[in-house]
Amino acid sequence: MRARILIRPKAAILDPQGQTVQRALAALGFDGVANVHVGRLIELDVDDPAQLEAMCETLLANPLIEEYEIVSDPSGDPTTP
Amino acid sequence: MRARILIRPKAAILDPQGQTVQRALAALGFDGVANVHVGRLIELDVDDPAQLEAMCETLLANPLIEEYEIVSDPSGDPTTP
Repeated sequence: MRARILIRPKAAILDPQGQTVQRALAALGFDGVANVHVGRLIELDVDDPAQLEAMCETLLANPLIEEYEIVSDPSGDPTTP
Repeated sequence: MRARILIRPKAAILDPQGQTVQRALAALGFDGVANVHVGRLIELDVDDPAQLEAMCETLLANPLIEEYEIVSDPSGDPTTP
């Protein structure tokens, strides 16, 4: 089964990469951009989706400073145009 | 409006980060994992969603080696559990 994992910095944690992107967008003339956050996207085929949370906790995300969201079967959602 | 951009290496491009994660998962005892790809997740508030494609082309993604997917209003999709 295909699964997608979205990993982002926790809300309380500084996101310097997001701030940099936000400033760069403004410098390029894109106005009205705010609250930019940069995280990671991991997509994988997994036989046992019940393992995904353990994978996130032990390797894929850093639970101290990141939150993760597991999306099983991403093809079933409207994120695919 | 909140928007989410998913950026991944193009299918024809080597993804060493994905290969490394796949090997590390196997080494940790997670079996049945395949086709791991690591990309980037960018979330931002934008006044004019029509600008998102230009933002991706000029700053957020590298169109030579990456493909991007723009998800407007991600709260409206079932990726949020």
